[in-house]
Amino acid sequence: MKLQDIGEFGFIERIAPLGMIRPEGVVKGIGDDCAVIDMGGPDYLLVTTDLVVERVHFLKDLASPETIGAKAVTVNLSDIAACGGLPRDAFVSLAIPQDVELDWLDGLYRGMTACAREYGVNILGGDTTGSKTDIVINITLTGTVPRDRVLFRHTAMPGNVVVLTGPTGESGAGCEILLTGADLPQDVSSPLIRSHMEPRPHVTEGRLLAESGACTAGIDVSDGLSSDLGHLCHDSGVGAVIYEERLPISPDLMRAAAAMGKNPLEWILNGGEDYVLLAAIRADRLEGLSSIARAAGCALYPIGEFVDRKEMILRTRDGRDAVLASRGWDHFR
Amino acid sequence: MKLQDIGEFGFIERIAPLGMIRPEGVVKGIGDDCAVIDMGGPDYLLVTTDLVVERVHFLKDLASPETIGAKAVTVNLSDIAACGGLPRDAFVSLAIPQDVELDWLDGLYRGMTACAREYGVNILGGDTTGSKTDIVINITLTGTVPRDRVLFRHTAMPGNVVVLTGPTGESGAGCEILLTGADLPQDVSSPLIRSHMEPRPHVTEGRLLAESGACTAGIDVSDGLSSDLGHLCHDSGVGAVIYEERLPISPDLMRAAAAMGKNPLEWILNGGEDYVLLAAIRADRLEGLSSIARAAGCALYPIGEFVDRKEMILRTRDGRDAVLASRGWDHFR
Repeated sequence: MKLQDIGEFGFIERIAPLGMIRPEGVVKGIGDDCAVIDMGGPDYLLVTTDLVVERVHFLKDLASPETIGAKAVTVNLSDIAACGGLPRDAFVSLAIPQDVELDWLDGLYRGMTACAREYGVNILGGDTTGSKTDIVINITLTGTVPRDRVLFRHTAMPGNVVVLTGPTGESGAGCEILLTGADLPQDVSSPLIRSHMEPRPHVTEGRLLAESGACTAGIDVSDGLSSDLGHLCHDSGVGAVIYEERLPISPDLMRAAAAMGKNPLEWILNGGEDYVLLAAIRADRLEGLSSIARAAGCALYPIGEFVDRKEMILRTRDGRDAVLASRGWDHFR
Repeated sequence: MKLQDIGEFGFIERIAPLGMIRPEGVVKGIGDDCAVIDMGGPDYLLVTTDLVVERVHFLKDLASPETIGAKAVTVNLSDIAACGGLPRDAFVSLAIPQDVELDWLDGLYRGMTACAREYGVNILGGDTTGSKTDIVINITLTGTVPRDRVLFRHTAMPGNVVVLTGPTGESGAGCEILLTGADLPQDVSSPLIRSHMEPRPHVTEGRLLAESGACTAGIDVSDGLSSDLGHLCHDSGVGAVIYEERLPISPDLMRAAAAMGKNPLEWILNGGEDYVLLAAIRADRLEGLSSIARAAGCALYPIGEFVDRKEMILRTRDGRDAVLASRGWDHFR
């Protein structure tokens, strides 16, 4: 049997139970954006790790080393944000083919350190080694979160509002434009490509959600909205109804969809790599929280509600209910 | 300029200063076996990470997946051991080409979890992704150590005894036998190949050294004895005299050297991947500590002393002094 027969999530389900042998101090292990550890101090320790591989996650010809470095840090910051945490220290492992230019590596580090600095994160070490073909970057990031404020995936409740902290779909559209070389006016393509190459981690939003006490669960949108909503619903044992008319959509995405003859909903639901947060908010706290968010320069988009049936529904603009299937990214399929 | 022009350690020196932006809570950053973090709890947090790449660190044809998995965990355990720590939680990132057999991956996980279990370590998560060509395994391991017991590289003192917790050279010889296909009787080659493929992390030895209060500094021997002694001396601002006649040498290594017409000293000093510990011990505490170690089933080999001159000397069996140069592994040279 090959990996593609069971897929990424089948593989993770297969290996996850093997690893947990000493529950003491482990608040959450495999199956959330971060592992959550009780080290006996005032805050929980958060740990997340992300692996970025040349020709799978980036092409050296299509992205600057600065961009690649910054994004490798960002995807980890986004995991800490999803748990409501404050990022702390990064550990960078690099595998480098011998012929890579030192200038390129300096650029990679400039991108990583600039992004890390912006969020108060140290790069404290790691490992550096050779590689035969592809550049490989693994970053492990730690963070902290007060014990009673951590956000999990498994704690959304029926009646909670489904909230996004930003629009989705731009990154997916930007990726498609990059890979297909779609012929679009530059003022249409550039912002979308930038959304894909230079996503912003929603660390401020995550802390605001966690500190409010109004948020019951959170996840970051990395696999795609439908997929990550699916993870939240599955782990919480709930379903969700999403209203098409409430999904935030950027003017840039509308213009690209029109120019390319595409339905923007495909990108919005299944694009992936958005790195906004998807959260469950107590309905009676939504209004107050939205004001606080606005004052802090953050946006909250209520797009639906969690329900007590185990299904995900998209209520379309014309009032029909369609099943919302998780159709995001799987690395092995 | 290419990477091979400045080498692995030149590259690390180049990037290390960029990453440290928030010293608060950072006891030790880049430049030791682990980063040492003060999280406000009773113990320090240790973090280490190691990247293992197919065709650089292992060949799928020459090693079983179980062996590769166990060794990927072991090299991290060895870093925690070098700081005197108790290993805690591992985070595994895997990049896997689509055609890798699930059986092979199950074997890899069997090896990782069996090794982790032996040392009370959870595997709590990580990242799983595709790869175009090579299998890539990154493991990040956390550990804890009491605040006043952590072992660093930079704290060896002149007059301290240079101590090994096991013989070196077997792994290097085993690696050479594997790669050259040297024609040796199996009872000579097997134990050496096993030393290379299945090294034992000296976690017990590390904790014993740290808890004794008699150990002033420690490092694990991964690059080779001459290289890692060089790191200890450089970081501590001291030198060392090593006595050839005191270097532990296994009978297996003697037999392989004789059969292959080699000087075993080359493997002992520069072989690498030994994963024993190299420590600085207060001279007046050596005898007592050795008794304690023996009672715990651990060995300590005093091989020389740290001195107040910045040079490393090998005093040969015939009483001559030779300069001991650091000639271990560099991934980019």
